[in-house]
Amino acid sequence: MNNENNSEEIIEILRKAPKVALFSHVSPDGDCIGSMLAIGRALEKIGKEVSFYNPDPLPGYLAFLPGYSRIRQELPCPQPKILLFVDCSDLGRVNMTRSEIYGDSIVLNLDHHISNLFFGDFNWVDAQASAVGEVALTLIKRLGVEIDGDMATNLYTAIMTDSGCFEYSNTTAQTHRLTADLLDKGVDLLSIHNNIFNQKPLAQIKLLACALNGLEIHADGRLAIMTLSAEDFQESGAEQELSEGLVNHARSIAGVEVAVLLKEVGPEIKGALRSNLWLNVNEIAARFGGGGHQRAAGCTFGTPMAEAKQCITTAIEEALRIGRDH
Amino acid sequence: MNNENNSEEIIEILRKAPKVALFSHVSPDGDCIGSMLAIGRALEKIGKEVSFYNPDPLPGYLAFLPGYSRIRQELPCPQPKILLFVDCSDLGRVNMTRSEIYGDSIVLNLDHHISNLFFGDFNWVDAQASAVGEVALTLIKRLGVEIDGDMATNLYTAIMTDSGCFEYSNTTAQTHRLTADLLDKGVDLLSIHNNIFNQKPLAQIKLLACALNGLEIHADGRLAIMTLSAEDFQESGAEQELSEGLVNHARSIAGVEVAVLLKEVGPEIKGALRSNLWLNVNEIAARFGGGGHQRAAGCTFGTPMAEAKQCITTAIEEALRIGRDH
Repeated sequence: MNNENNSEEIIEILRKAPKVALFSHVSPDGDCIGSMLAIGRALEKIGKEVSFYNPDPLPGYLAFLPGYSRIRQELPCPQPKILLFVDCSDLGRVNMTRSEIYGDSIVLNLDHHISNLFFGDFNWVDAQASAVGEVALTLIKRLGVEIDGDMATNLYTAIMTDSGCFEYSNTTAQTHRLTADLLDKGVDLLSIHNNIFNQKPLAQIKLLACALNGLEIHADGRLAIMTLSAEDFQESGAEQELSEGLVNHARSIAGVEVAVLLKEVGPEIKGALRSNLWLNVNEIAARFGGGGHQRAAGCTFGTPMAEAKQCITTAIEEALRIGRDH
Repeated sequence: MNNENNSEEIIEILRKAPKVALFSHVSPDGDCIGSMLAIGRALEKIGKEVSFYNPDPLPGYLAFLPGYSRIRQELPCPQPKILLFVDCSDLGRVNMTRSEIYGDSIVLNLDHHISNLFFGDFNWVDAQASAVGEVALTLIKRLGVEIDGDMATNLYTAIMTDSGCFEYSNTTAQTHRLTADLLDKGVDLLSIHNNIFNQKPLAQIKLLACALNGLEIHADGRLAIMTLSAEDFQESGAEQELSEGLVNHARSIAGVEVAVLLKEVGPEIKGALRSNLWLNVNEIAARFGGGGHQRAAGCTFGTPMAEAKQCITTAIEEALRIGRDH
């Protein structure tokens, strides 16, 4: 697999194509939408006819992105010959199979996920990039299109969201250099950050209050555990997915190595586990049939809340003890 | 005032000095401490004798900064001839007056505050810099000292904290370019962000729970107001200053233009006001004898909580109404 060669062919194919259809993944985020819109605008600047597709309804907090309203939930019909997939590790990420793609189509695959399946006829996968936005910016520069303010806003949003405001360890010197180039073109930081971070549903804030009210500290302050009951979701008016990220509040407490959020979902208890410095929560989740990464994992319990809490607390306390003794 | 000329003289003076005393400001933060430590290390690399001073006890969350333990709360005695003040807009920021400085001393003033009083014999104030860390990095480069990993960690922390993780509007293309140079030298992002952001006192999380439990929404969702009573502080075990920043949780709710946190401090109610996009909260605070900036201001009430809440709610509802009608 030689990504560098493919990138050259992708540039050439895009230069010659009269029409390009762009695709981005389910559960869309700032990176796939921002990158797709920036590339589309660049292609239009050099005379291409462009369509934008996403399988899911778009989140309202991204509505400020220039071009947002042009994204369709219907597949382009007829399909143009050149199809460019943005930020998708495989075709399943756009709810598609290869059989849905016309036989003479050329599939271009632009991504930054290390898990990418190289499903394209031509692939450009940079697993060192914090966001596909970095790859998109490089692509636009190599197309010879000058970055304008709208592209900069889209690409800044892409890079900033996927790098966690430049906090995640995927952030590199290159991430910052490319971001600097975008800021040169005019980016309204205040407005972007306001749109991305200050648009939390009220129900989510109420759910946070519920979670914090039930906060428990164990293992001499090294384990913080929060719970959300079905009633908590009902009373706050929050959907399940709004609990996403709340576990980080427990993780942010001084001295805490492991944070857990247990939530009641129908007859099950779903657990989100996070660790700060050393504990492998993937191993702990695996003991309950779950998994994930060393610092972030999840598992599901078929027992009532009290029992699930007891199980996970005991397992983590033991792991913390063993870790300390070794 | 010609800052550029002064920067050259400051470089020359530092090159020639055998001893340099470094000073940083009260209520120390990542920017002043990180910048001071990086400059000190650079000066030592070119053979200078260096001392580090801060008038206040240092916050524990900065203990990971290389060189942290060398900072003293006692003024250097005897004073060396060259005194370099870092991140201080005036001598009051180090609890000093000019009379405490020996007559033949040379005062160097390195800062980025637009309010800087140019109190030094030589001044290098770059009000475009997001952090004095940017100025410190430029100074070290111009001294001809190569940035090492320890300096990079200190300077990255300085820039990252004062630019609000590159979110505040003081962040420029230059901020990102300098940060890229630091990442080239080796910076452990995970560890730094963990030290800075995941060290919240448990009492602060409990105080957040209190604030969220009392959250009220007014003005068709555009005003979010929270209160903290003396009992809330007592029961959570939190000091007054731990309420800092909690108002941002109210500000982050979708549709909210103004967020207010009222807290009981002795016989008074102190209000923190924040706006997201357009309302001038400085004007509102001024009506109650307070002030600040357009998007962040504060004021104090001599009345009980219920009355203060009524006053500020009415004033903001009116301002929101007028703003909408215009």
